Amino acid sequence: MNTIHTRRTIRRYAERDVDNTLLTRLLTEAERTQTMGNLQLYSVVITRSAEMKANLAPAHFNQPMVCGAPVVLTFCADFRRTTRWAEERNATPGYDNFLSFLNAATDTLLYCQTFCNLAEEAGLGLCYLGTTVYMTQQIIDTLGLPKLVFPVATITLGWPAEEPALSDRLPLTAIIHEETYQDYTAERINNFYQEKESLPENQEFVRINKKETLAQVFTDCRYTKKDNVAMSERLIATLKRQGFIQE
Amino acid sequence: MNTIHTRRTIRRYAERDVDNTLLTRLLTEAERTQTMGNLQLYSVVITRSAEMKANLAPAHFNQPMVCGAPVVLTFCADFRRTTRWAEERNATPGYDNFLSFLNAATDTLLYCQTFCNLAEEAGLGLCYLGTTVYMTQQIIDTLGLPKLVFPVATITLGWPAEEPALSDRLPLTAIIHEETYQDYTAERINNFYQEKESLPENQEFVRINKKETLAQVFTDCRYTKKDNVAMSERLIATLKRQGFIQE
Repeated sequence: MNTIHTRRTIRRYAERDVDNTLLTRLLTEAERTQTMGNLQLYSVVITRSAEMKANLAPAHFNQPMVCGAPVVLTFCADFRRTTRWAEERNATPGYDNFLSFLNAATDTLLYCQTFCNLAEEAGLGLCYLGTTVYMTQQIIDTLGLPKLVFPVATITLGWPAEEPALSDRLPLTAIIHEETYQDYTAERINNFYQEKESLPENQEFVRINKKETLAQVFTDCRYTKKDNVAMSERLIATLKRQGFIQE
Repeated sequence: MNTIHTRRTIRRYAERDVDNTLLTRLLTEAERTQTMGNLQLYSVVITRSAEMKANLAPAHFNQPMVCGAPVVLTFCADFRRTTRWAEERNATPGYDNFLSFLNAATDTLLYCQTFCNLAEEAGLGLCYLGTTVYMTQQIIDTLGLPKLVFPVATITLGWPAEEPALSDRLPLTAIIHEETYQDYTAERINNFYQEKESLPENQEFVRINKKETLAQVFTDCRYTKKDNVAMSERLIATLKRQGFIQE
């Protein structure tokens, strides 16, 4: 898995299809990922048609990767299949609750990430769309997802037509805690974020957004409290509609 | 990543430590995983001390892997570090909401799975503890997790001392949907679950649990509605206490 060292998000793709044999192989291999009780609480909707990509695009704020990639994969937490299996086998399913959503979302994200690791190792490039959880109802309507199915991740996939710079990461010491959680003092924050804040691309990012600090770009522009609160309400309403939270 | 083909959960570990240099390398390499806005919304608490493993064990129903593994890793959704960064940089964070929890949990699970794939490629064996989300408050108390930090995954890690049989998986056709979701008719359920239900180990599983069908083992014994509902309530209460859902 040497590709991990040079991993970057790929947003531009070559005019070359992703062969169905390859896609099937990668999705099948990823099935070896650990899964709760071996129930495999996920489904993947494969979008190849231009029309369906155009239908999905607004839910992803019309980011050009959706229509520009040969393949779009929507990874869904899925307790519908297990529930249908139980119904057909004289068993009474009880998965219309929040724990079951989190269990299925977990299964789905682990599966999704093994798929990403394998796809990148095969030379494919991909972009993970964080927008998936912003407009879930639109995605549900577009893909026809029934109750107990919920989109949690979207990947645009293709052969890379760009090689962007590697993005920075925090030092590992910022992330790990020995035995118990060590809280973040002002001094530790300074140590951990100093390098990130000093990078020319991040300083440029502050300048073009007309902010004082890099953190302000995130809190005031990219991920604001107002948006987060509004989207949280929508997300919970959609979880109720899909049957994962009872009123 | 050839190890994916023979991947199995490892619950018994050799009497051999996991070298800190190796662990550090794997955790660092996994940092290349995609992350929301490059915020890296996760923390990992590393448990090596016998005392702390013993403290964690009850939250994981005293499964022997917790005390039996040289290393236990608790992967936590973490908006605390980003919030502290914002506070130190004259920025107003707004991450005390459910969307932010899901974003951080997603980042954490993707990071966790890349780590698992790398660890297995290095020859390590691991067990993913699904119990993590059952008793989150106990884990929070044991590890001293502050607000906006929430445990979402636990891995017990060590050198394999067993080689269990590969577990079965559903055929890929059970999981993928072309363009839109194809619902599960009785016929499709029969096709997809036939092989799983016919395996001797699964038939034995039905027999020892004194059930009629394999599905009943899951609905009546392993993941019951009663338990799921009770644990959902606890989970939501803990999300409120950690600041990710407002009353």
